[in-house]
Amino acid sequence: KNILIVPGDGIGQEVTEVGKNVLVKIAEKFGHEFVYDEALMGHVAIEATGNPLPDETLSKMRASDAILFGAVGHPKYDNDPTAKVRPEQGLLKMRKELGLYANLRPIKLFDELLGASSIKPEILKGSDILFFRELTGDIYFGEKGRKNDNNTAFDLAEYSRYEVERIGRKAFEAARTRGKKLCSVDKANVLETSRLWREVIQALAPEYPDIEVEHQFVDSAAMMLIKDPRRFDVVVTANLFGDILTDEASQIAGSMGMLASASVGDSTGVYEPIHGSAHDITGKGIANPLASVLSAALLLDISFGLKEESETIIAAVDKLLKDGFRTRDIADATTAPEMILNTQAAG
Amino acid sequence: KNILIVPGDGIGQEVTEVGKNVLVKIAEKFGHEFVYDEALMGHVAIEATGNPLPDETLSKMRASDAILFGAVGHPKYDNDPTAKVRPEQGLLKMRKELGLYANLRPIKLFDELLGASSIKPEILKGSDILFFRELTGDIYFGEKGRKNDNNTAFDLAEYSRYEVERIGRKAFEAARTRGKKLCSVDKANVLETSRLWREVIQALAPEYPDIEVEHQFVDSAAMMLIKDPRRFDVVVTANLFGDILTDEASQIAGSMGMLASASVGDSTGVYEPIHGSAHDITGKGIANPLASVLSAALLLDISFGLKEESETIIAAVDKLLKDGFRTRDIADATTAPEMILNTQAAG
Ligand SMILES: CC(C)[C@H](C(=O)O)[C@@H](O)C(=O)O
Ligand SMILES: CC(C)[C@H](C(=O)O)[C@@H](O)C(=O)O
Repeated sequence: KNILIVPGDGIGQEVTEVGKNVLVKIAEKFGHEFVYDEALMGHVAIEATGNPLPDETLSKMRASDAILFGAVGHPKYDNDPTAKVRPEQGLLKMRKELGLYANLRPIKLFDELLGASSIKPEILKGSDILFFRELTGDIYFGEKGRKNDNNTAFDLAEYSRYEVERIGRKAFEAARTRGKKLCSVDKANVLETSRLWREVIQALAPEYPDIEVEHQFVDSAAMMLIKDPRRFDVVVTANLFGDILTDEASQIAGSMGMLASASVGDSTGVYEPIHGSAHDITGKGIANPLASVLSAALLLDISFGLKEESETIIAAVDKLLKDGFRTRDIADATTAPEMILNTQAAG
Repeated sequence: KNILIVPGDGIGQEVTEVGKNVLVKIAEKFGHEFVYDEALMGHVAIEATGNPLPDETLSKMRASDAILFGAVGHPKYDNDPTAKVRPEQGLLKMRKELGLYANLRPIKLFDELLGASSIKPEILKGSDILFFRELTGDIYFGEKGRKNDNNTAFDLAEYSRYEVERIGRKAFEAARTRGKKLCSVDKANVLETSRLWREVIQALAPEYPDIEVEHQFVDSAAMMLIKDPRRFDVVVTANLFGDILTDEASQIAGSMGMLASASVGDSTGVYEPIHGSAHDITGKGIANPLASVLSAALLLDISFGLKEESETIIAAVDKLLKDGFRTRDIADATTAPEMILNTQAAG
């Protein structure tokens, strides 16, 4: 099996190294032969080649069996809205080229971190949400540009029935293996794309009579996620709403630094932390590598079907936390300084 | 002074009556002469006239000095994404016709409700955020429709420099009267409308050297609102992001039932609760009327410049809460049944 490592920018470099080391150790322990290669993407790729997703990276991606990815982004471009070449273009192009239309973001709280969240433990306890974020459509990929002498900007949001149906089915099927509840999030009281979305999910529902379906408006869902996270089981939503709601939901898991994601679709799957490149803490060795480690676990489970190997990683993370070790983002006032680990040690 | 009362749908009817009664009492107490009229909007207007915003309502709106509004919406339309006439069209048309481009949503926690939120009190204490949500542009008002034989839906998001500048200035000016911090929220790493938004806010900043400006991506802002609400002072953002973030932020204030908003712009201001028509609790007499009462306070302050009158209302709400009275949404395990008020009594 070929695994391509794409660390990207900022703390992506630091945490992906740890994620890879875990894959190496698991392969040793279970006697697997994984072959690793590495490739550039994002700001580092722009610096090296002028292109945020060089052709060489894309062909390596297509040739690999799974991809462990870090993060892309750089403040340089954030501060310059007129920049023509941007790290995020590489990310979006990868998603489109590899047909990664389904982004799975499991939000599950490790019991030991109940106290680390800003939300009350009694509200959080037992929360377990699986988000399906559509990843190759919506306002991310529609036509965009300027008109009226550069005085008006526009972005077009688009969804086809087919696009909604394929992500909808994935979500319904996942709900079957879990709590049998599906919440579809849209803004059908305003958006035509959302009305199509709701129509398609409503049309699918009779095929899954065992699943309890509800539709929520995105504003209301953003509120309920914090008010009562346990009411959610599987959530399916469009690209932009999924981006916002899953970042928000990271607070349910105590820290963004704990959350892994899987992007799957037509071919090679990509596994990455939900967090970004975080240039404010880059180089300090304090980034939490557990999201990358848990991404490696998702990779083994989803792309390779290696359940036991995947669970071994999750159990190791659990033990680390039970033993009281913390990176800074999940430490609290009661954590002794000697229990605070840097990125490498946590790996 | 003419005040138009537009209760709208669902609990809008119940809470707006209470808000109006408070205006009547304040007028008595302070010796003002307010003239009231009432008009239909939303589902009730569709039932009566076929139009969610009848011409008669619109002319009454234009003729009034301020509007106290309830909510619109009905599950009938939510469950039928193909309905051509919808209550929300009335709301959007009102915003556009009256030029209500600035929606102010103050998120402030009454100390007595520290415990009512799902967020920890020590995270919340002292939070005080003023949102400026742009209200007449973005994907709400761009072209929308179907193509490819009804198999593709689209919504166009648009912003002009002028639209961003006028809401930006309002937010900068408000920041001057408060904590002197402005956070502009966008998704400039993906959207062209957001890049224009960021350009314009960056260009305004030098005119307000006393204001500390930061730019955050909407996903990250959704996370930080819960993780550390006190870091925000004034927040300015686009229509759709503002819709989502302010509903989310309602959890900072303990309950959506506490939050008032003001929509202002070219002419008559509209004052309304952030909450919707809530048909699930309509007719039960349990809706929290305080958002409507506080909307009345905003009306007196912003449209009529009656500061003392406005503060009298806020103080009365504070006293009600201090005395231990609660509606159901803000009650907790320690609230005695006899302290739980219905909608009328809370007014
Ligand atoms: C970096 C950015 C373009 C990206 C997105 O919005 O999809 C990120 O926030 C994510 O969630 O993966
Ligand atoms: C009812 C709906 C169209 C409306 C909006 O999205 O603007 C509401 O959610 C609000 O925030 O006033």
